[in-house]
Amino acid sequence: MAQASVKENEVDIVIGAIHPDLTSFMNEWRSVFSRFHLIIVKDPDLKEELKIPDGFDVDVYTKSDIDRVVGSSSSISFSGYSCRYFGFLVSRKKYVISIDDDCVPAQDSTGNFVDAVAQHIFNLTTPATPFFFNTLYDPYRKGADFVRGYPFSLRSGVACALSCGLWLNLADYDAPTQALKPGERNARYVDAVLTIPTRAMMPMSGINIAFDREAVGPALFPALRLAAEGKFRWETIEDIWCGMCVKVVCDHLCLGVKSGLPYVWRKDRGDAVESLKKEWEGVKLMEHLVPFFQSVRLPRTATTAEDCVVEMAGTVKQQLGPTDPVFTRAAEAMVEWIRIWKAVGLGSPGK
Amino acid sequence: MAQASVKENEVDIVIGAIHPDLTSFMNEWRSVFSRFHLIIVKDPDLKEELKIPDGFDVDVYTKSDIDRVVGSSSSISFSGYSCRYFGFLVSRKKYVISIDDDCVPAQDSTGNFVDAVAQHIFNLTTPATPFFFNTLYDPYRKGADFVRGYPFSLRSGVACALSCGLWLNLADYDAPTQALKPGERNARYVDAVLTIPTRAMMPMSGINIAFDREAVGPALFPALRLAAEGKFRWETIEDIWCGMCVKVVCDHLCLGVKSGLPYVWRKDRGDAVESLKKEWEGVKLMEHLVPFFQSVRLPRTATTAEDCVVEMAGTVKQQLGPTDPVFTRAAEAMVEWIRIWKAVGLGSPGK
Repeated sequence: MAQASVKENEVDIVIGAIHPDLTSFMNEWRSVFSRFHLIIVKDPDLKEELKIPDGFDVDVYTKSDIDRVVGSSSSISFSGYSCRYFGFLVSRKKYVISIDDDCVPAQDSTGNFVDAVAQHIFNLTTPATPFFFNTLYDPYRKGADFVRGYPFSLRSGVACALSCGLWLNLADYDAPTQALKPGERNARYVDAVLTIPTRAMMPMSGINIAFDREAVGPALFPALRLAAEGKFRWETIEDIWCGMCVKVVCDHLCLGVKSGLPYVWRKDRGDAVESLKKEWEGVKLMEHLVPFFQSVRLPRTATTAEDCVVEMAGTVKQQLGPTDPVFTRAAEAMVEWIRIWKAVGLGSPGK
Repeated sequence: MAQASVKENEVDIVIGAIHPDLTSFMNEWRSVFSRFHLIIVKDPDLKEELKIPDGFDVDVYTKSDIDRVVGSSSSISFSGYSCRYFGFLVSRKKYVISIDDDCVPAQDSTGNFVDAVAQHIFNLTTPATPFFFNTLYDPYRKGADFVRGYPFSLRSGVACALSCGLWLNLADYDAPTQALKPGERNARYVDAVLTIPTRAMMPMSGINIAFDREAVGPALFPALRLAAEGKFRWETIEDIWCGMCVKVVCDHLCLGVKSGLPYVWRKDRGDAVESLKKEWEGVKLMEHLVPFFQSVRLPRTATTAEDCVVEMAGTVKQQLGPTDPVFTRAAEAMVEWIRIWKAVGLGSPGK
């Protein structure tokens, strides 16, 4: 991987603390995280004190910070995995990287530890190629290029706004699949990054992502909340909803989305069979969501991520609202998010 | 890789013989090729006798066979790399696999030789997922599945009609890139197969492909011929044109196209700098081609690959014809191909 020319003070690493004891998590990431400013947002449902080891440049936000900045009467909830979005809101950096607190550095196929942050920054600072698929994967990687037949006019690509990393060990399945294959682990390290083509939709997982906050920050929000949302990834789809919103925004603004490297290692936890007792609400909602996001188009007058989100919220309310009240609430949360985003952008985050 | 349940007599391996001495090529592939029926089509420009080692079930076709079946006055040329398409025409099998005669079996990342035929058959006989991108790559592979958020209604996928393999060592660059990076070799084995999303275009390379002949055979033809087309891959785009036609046909008929495994090992040959002295005709044409294929839509009345090709030929002539006579000739070749395909389908190939 070529070295990207990003200054360390242009990056925030945002961690949503779902678990109180971050000692082992932070120590395993120490050589990477200690070079950057960290934003840790404590899940407002978490009662215990956070344990954070020394030696990091870190700001911690808790429920009282959230209430102060956002107000407690908001239509947005920052509970559980959604707490990280508060970190996206108060960050002042160009790039944000966010990794789940049950993930540690992975090893590549030669046994070397992966610097996930460096790879995300590389993905975000090299162009994306959404308008034609390069069969040889990322053409900007050292030792790679565009394959024969790739139009020269498209070889400069477009700016990349979102980098979706992957995970080894515990695969990111939904509750039914995880329950059906409790012993299945992802052991295959696929050494590639690719641009998701324009107009193609994918399910973004929030486990391991990075984005250009200046370009698409307003489009990363916790809007879709399941009635029985839990503290395991397979009990949430807030990131999937958000990912499809960002993809639509990127397609509209001619920005790129990449998927693939870097990997992180997900530690085992949770009982998927127990999660199955909850309603399969997320699985059902996806059947409405995907056709919607595949067909939604934004007006030319929407020229910023803020504009796009507000436009999309209107369409969500109108087209999806009648099928399920969860979508009406999501639309309201999207409008509210943009209001808060603008307000926070004008003020000081207070840290 | 799971074993696909395809009988060996459902498969033809088609080799276009650009080089007269196939001894080393066939011997390196012996353990794979000896299980299948082979169709070798000798480049009609080749003067020397073919050398083919014993021990294979092979039918060889030469210029006289081509003249007999197609007629010498055809608007289609089977010279050079295009000779293989004659093999696609006379095959009677459901699946066709075609590999360039300068490629030998590759090794995977653990040093085992890759059975490219088995992988192609696996790709073609497991579903493709063009309507939503699975970030964990091929969900039908052993040890893999659909990622959280993937709609259950799309998990049965669609039939896969085309499998595009990749290559190690000599990367498949165009002449300018190859000349600029004469020493660059592709050493990275990416252990993945993915479905190219619907409506996304990619440059198919004919080096290492397989397809369902019953489904899309009529859409694999040599139509676009450069004025100075040579005997090196970087001097041709006949496969790129053909690949975009097949992709449009697959998208229209709701069939899938996969890219990735299997790899083959491409031996070094040729002088790219010498090729640069020829006009950059292919590179220029791609600038017209790509927007055309990205926007072309077929009528609902086109329900077979034959229908689709004839419809597309009309649009090529009308929309691209005025920009360059090479496109008018391509449109004529496409119509002619369908005429021949139907005629050959009714008769006997004579072997």
